[in-house]
Amino acid sequence: MRKVFQADLQQIGEELIEMANQVATAMDRAWDSLANADVELAQEVIAADAKIDFLQNQLDERAIDTLALQGPVASDLRMIVGSLRMSASLERMGDLARHLAQLARLRFPQPAIPERISTTFAEMAKIDIQIAQAVARLLDTRDLNIAAEIIELNHEVDRLHSSVFARIAEADWDASAPTTVDVSLTSRYLERFGDHGVSVARKVTYLVTGEWDPSDA
Amino acid sequence: MRKVFQADLQQIGEELIEMANQVATAMDRAWDSLANADVELAQEVIAADAKIDFLQNQLDERAIDTLALQGPVASDLRMIVGSLRMSASLERMGDLARHLAQLARLRFPQPAIPERISTTFAEMAKIDIQIAQAVARLLDTRDLNIAAEIIELNHEVDRLHSSVFARIAEADWDASAPTTVDVSLTSRYLERFGDHGVSVARKVTYLVTGEWDPSDA
Repeated sequence: MRKVFQADLQQIGEELIEMANQVATAMDRAWDSLANADVELAQEVIAADAKIDFLQNQLDERAIDTLALQGPVASDLRMIVGSLRMSASLERMGDLARHLAQLARLRFPQPAIPERISTTFAEMAKIDIQIAQAVARLLDTRDLNIAAEIIELNHEVDRLHSSVFARIAEADWDASAPTTVDVSLTSRYLERFGDHGVSVARKVTYLVTGEWDPSDA
Repeated sequence: MRKVFQADLQQIGEELIEMANQVATAMDRAWDSLANADVELAQEVIAADAKIDFLQNQLDERAIDTLALQGPVASDLRMIVGSLRMSASLERMGDLARHLAQLARLRFPQPAIPERISTTFAEMAKIDIQIAQAVARLLDTRDLNIAAEIIELNHEVDRLHSSVFARIAEADWDASAPTTVDVSLTSRYLERFGDHGVSVARKVTYLVTGEWDPSDA
């Protein structure tokens, strides 16, 4: 039984890594579609999100089967329950990438994001992709230095998110109200993406060290 | 053992109902604090959110202990795993109420929400409170008519959310850019609150009927 259980855990771990890699790709392509008003790419990102949802369902079913058939306890049990939580965070990161692509599609053929703020969002998207890639590496290696790196990267996303709202509050901000809405929501999506990456990092840290950081709200 | 298990399940169910009730109260008070620029009430809502987080942790620990000690299978197992997911949704609803209170605090002594859009948000908040209260009743009774009612209520929240963005796009919208940001984010928080209520409703429906509606993304 033990051997089967280890194989199940291994499989669940690989599926989480696969989800993190797909989520990184989704953010990469979603930002491209938004920055370049590329509606075909946006459609592809939206369609690909269904695959991430499918991966989550598959992983969750496997986790529940493992709970039922192996009845794990202690750290093994926490690992499986943690996997269910991490898959939910990764699925949500996929949704947020999809929201960016949906915005690109909604405003097409106009670009949704004014040029003056585009550099900031490009930077946020770049860091978000790094966060998702780091999550994949963290899940693979359990090297907690990577968890610390993810938290640092997310601080930078938060800083850029605040700078967007500061920019909007400046006297010379003259974008239309709908564009201001698009900019606010885009910033929010990019910021939430990073937060979910941090949730996964904290969960892995907890599973490795047994110590829970309550700042993971 | 069976008797202990039933008592555990009962306790978990009661804690979910308690969370739903606290979340309804949080939204009620958060909206009040935002509508009336009441910074003291806002502080209370922010402080009270820690209690909802505490309830979630308590419930999750109980659920994990139950998995470890009782090794449930089949529908009992799905009930426990479902409880972990529902507690996460309810905790998130609490966060969204807190975000409204934080906005009230940030803009104090100015009101964050312009009067012309306040009626729409008051309506959204009222329906959100009804959703959270309905979630508590659904968890208590498992009457699937209530699940259908929650989905209907959420359609109305979505409709109002769209109307906010339509209103912002009208030619006579002359609020400042930062106010436009506050309005967008408030609308988004109120909309997401309802979505999480629907997630819980779909989860309960699944646990009662065994049929999963994949539209619960």
